[in-house]
Amino acid sequence: MQAKTPKESLTILTDMVLPGETNPLNNLFGGELLARMDRAASIAARRHSRRIVVTASVNHVAFSRAVPLGSVVTVEAKVSRAFKTSIEVFIDVWIEDRESGKKTKANEGIYTFVAVDETGRPIAVPELVPETDLEKERFAAALRRKQLSLLLAGKMKPNEASELKALFE
Amino acid sequence: MQAKTPKESLTILTDMVLPGETNPLNNLFGGELLARMDRAASIAARRHSRRIVVTASVNHVAFSRAVPLGSVVTVEAKVSRAFKTSIEVFIDVWIEDRESGKKTKANEGIYTFVAVDETGRPIAVPELVPETDLEKERFAAALRRKQLSLLLAGKMKPNEASELKALFE
Amino acid sequence: MQAKTPKESLTILTDMVLPGETNPLNNLFGGELLARMDRAASIAARRHSRRIVVTASVNHVAFSRAVPLGSVVTVEAKVSRAFKTSIEVFIDVWIEDRESGKKTKANEGIYTFVAVDETGRPIAVPELVPETDLEKERFAAALRRKQLSLLLAGKMKPNEASELKALFE
Amino acid sequence: MQAKTPKESLTILTDMVLPGETNPLNNLFGGELLARMDRAASIAARRHSRRIVVTASVNHVAFSRAVPLGSVVTVEAKVSRAFKTSIEVFIDVWIEDRESGKKTKANEGIYTFVAVDETGRPIAVPELVPETDLEKERFAAALRRKQLSLLLAGKMKPNEASELKALFE
Amino acid sequence: MQAKTPKESLTILTDMVLPGETNPLNNLFGGELLARMDRAASIAARRHSRRIVVTASVNHVAFSRAVPLGSVVTVEAKVSRAFKTSIEVFIDVWIEDRESGKKTKANEGIYTFVAVDETGRPIAVPELVPETDLEKERFAAALRRKQLSLLLAGKMKPNEASELKALFE
Amino acid sequence: MQAKTPKESLTILTDMVLPGETNPLNNLFGGELLARMDRAASIAARRHSRRIVVTASVNHVAFSRAVPLGSVVTVEAKVSRAFKTSIEVFIDVWIEDRESGKKTKANEGIYTFVAVDETGRPIAVPELVPETDLEKERFAAALRRKQLSLLLAGKMKPNEASELKALFE
Repeated sequence: MQAKTPKESLTILTDMVLPGETNPLNNLFGGELLARMDRAASIAARRHSRRIVVTASVNHVAFSRAVPLGSVVTVEAKVSRAFKTSIEVFIDVWIEDRESGKKTKANEGIYTFVAVDETGRPIAVPELVPETDLEKERFAAALRRKQLSLLLAGKMKPNEASELKALFE
Repeated sequence: MQAKTPKESLTILTDMVLPGETNPLNNLFGGELLARMDRAASIAARRHSRRIVVTASVNHVAFSRAVPLGSVVTVEAKVSRAFKTSIEVFIDVWIEDRESGKKTKANEGIYTFVAVDETGRPIAVPELVPETDLEKERFAAALRRKQLSLLLAGKMKPNEASELKALFE
Repeated sequence: MQAKTPKESLTILTDMVLPGETNPLNNLFGGELLARMDRAASIAARRHSRRIVVTASVNHVAFSRAVPLGSVVTVEAKVSRAFKTSIEVFIDVWIEDRESGKKTKANEGIYTFVAVDETGRPIAVPELVPETDLEKERFAAALRRKQLSLLLAGKMKPNEASELKALFE
Repeated sequence: MQAKTPKESLTILTDMVLPGETNPLNNLFGGELLARMDRAASIAARRHSRRIVVTASVNHVAFSRAVPLGSVVTVEAKVSRAFKTSIEVFIDVWIEDRESGKKTKANEGIYTFVAVDETGRPIAVPELVPETDLEKERFAAALRRKQLSLLLAGKMKPNEASELKALFE
Repeated sequence: MQAKTPKESLTILTDMVLPGETNPLNNLFGGELLARMDRAASIAARRHSRRIVVTASVNHVAFSRAVPLGSVVTVEAKVSRAFKTSIEVFIDVWIEDRESGKKTKANEGIYTFVAVDETGRPIAVPELVPETDLEKERFAAALRRKQLSLLLAGKMKPNEASELKALFE
Repeated sequence: MQAKTPKESLTILTDMVLPGETNPLNNLFGGELLARMDRAASIAARRHSRRIVVTASVNHVAFSRAVPLGSVVTVEAKVSRAFKTSIEVFIDVWIEDRESGKKTKANEGIYTFVAVDETGRPIAVPELVPETDLEKERFAAALRRKQLSLLLAGKMKPNEASELKALFE
């Protein structure tokens, strides 16, 4: 299997915020944004693996800025690291000012997917080779996140979590 | 007002086809696709004009290929010509094969929007300067479409529709 | 196959505009209206042909008047002409004033459907025999629209488009 | 206020059953049908009263026949009786066979609405004058239903419910 | 089959009212509430019978209080009586004040379901043994409602409706 | 402000999985489940604080088991720890077997909300006093998660993250 770069999986989902997708404060409803991120991220994971993929976990989503009714929202998803059968996807969410056209970061999130064959069993995926500085940084952090996730799930012992441990030394 | 190029308004909406968006034949429901095209196209018109825009007409949509459940669908909208206060947007719809990653054109459509001020009155928009051959061809055809539309609506006489008339000479 | 009249396919879809179906200006979202028109028109095409029908194209939709939140909207679809395996449907959209009960035309559109058999292959449909003056006028115009559509798609040469050509002579 | 006939409020909502509106047995989801009946019936009540109307109660809905995916469903709502400020609406639901075009009754229901002024206070509505035999029968039964409803709510004593009592004598 | 108590089928559906679920007065749309009640009630009927269940009728729903946008709504469904193959479910709907946390009854409704086997044929369900005073009262009233329903449908003669008749003596 | 226990914020959202909420594998679509969790969790946070709350982050969601079409899904949300103005909510998702009635854990997640006043500014919330062993365990872990979150966001230095550091010693 040939390794791939993040830009090969780049997925862009630009859409508006209509009244049926808001919360009572007239901002994009959090659950709707989580769903859009899931859709874009799973397409990125599928583009990387060319397999059926299923959402395994949401590792983190930070809602740093409300997204008002009528906004144009761009969800950009790109694979940040591939493990044996799992794929971590980083998602950046932007809103743009109508008059100036200026884009502002509104949220970001990290989702993990597993590639499966037709019977639903996990199957190997290509490696990811990061290119830009930001891609390299996210690639490195992905391993810490994976160890953390195993640690919190009780599937790894603290002293095996080498990358995490190094943070505290 | 400074003229703009088509690529400045390029809007990409990549999304999946979920079961709740299909027709009884398990393909993307036509009405849902028309709605997605409207959302992407209106963002393109807004990016060109930096104004509030409202859908004025759907000039043509050809459904050349069914879009099956589970497909990844990419809707790409780009302004094809700007008139005084109205903006024609061309929309190309692609589906991609999961295993090969190959993209196929599934549909295309043309929508027209009007830019309005806060009180809802039409307001002038920047000119469009096409760059690629395809953009130039669509730009030229837009005038014929506009004349045709005025002709069919009885707002222009056949002998005034110079561009159309030329087709038959 | 016995010919049919337009009124045999008349399909009425009267419904309200709820907040979840509006755009940020509090009018019926264009995409939602296109979807309602598609639903009504495809039922009209099915009633004419008694076959499975699929949307082939949207020939034209004019949004002449915004439809505010809370409106009662009536979508009326009727077959305007039948060709060998395809069916053109004309759709009139009305809104009515709550206090006076007066109906106003808000939009109109033309969609084309193809009748298919169980395997998805095009299949012949009954002829349409228009009755009223309006039906006859729309019936005649349908041929011009068909030629235009073939012409724009490069499937017919200008000098073969007899009906269209006649417009300019 | 001038009395009205049932046909003045007749509201027809013809629509398809798409996959996103079904239950796990692939029939129209009951809740979705109740919602469509509510939409059609409230339009009928509004057409009778030319007022804002709010749903006061669902008196009865019988689901006698499942409505399969892909069906064409016609919801027909007509005012069956008007009281001082409330309006009873009878709703008949039909499905039609695609090949024969034959219509079959699938369900029926009775909803009651109250007409309100801009401040939300109940306001008088026109009388209803039934015309056909079926309209007259439903008009008569409406009084028994109203007494029953008051009786069950403890707002009327059994010996005051003259119409109901008569049933048992 | 072992009899069951109402609390064994208690189903709680607590949810918010988002803008996409309101009517033009900014209250929860009646049809949406009817759908939520149907979902909760059918789960209660399924928990009682451990069978596939289908909605047979809505016997009564009273909308006594509007449910404003942003409310927290709790739908509580509990089996009120089981007959041979049918199950009556009572549904109470509450809204709660955000600041005081006080709950107020907004609506109530009664739905009937039929338990079916895999081929869709009605199948016997366990008896219900009411425990609290309210459960006993609703259990007793269920028989009157059933007789009334049969009576109105012309499937029972007035003098056979013993429970109902007793009301008027 | 009086401290509260987790059970005072317990929010239960029991609902079915209908076809319109599935992914192409006929399981509950991940984005739809994330939205349901967000709705239930925000109600729990609101019940604890009696304030308007906004989603600040999704800390973790593990999709351990697919939720098939037709399932009954119970989302249970309970506050796990309150900080100065923020509230961590733990969400457990269960599915139940129709025939045996047995419940199985399908997923779990952790969301954080911020309580705000009418102008959108963060406002203090009551403390949480855990009662059961599981509640105490989740309460303790919440501090580690908070430190981790600050650490990953670069708002805390590793040697200040006392709780986390202790894990590796």
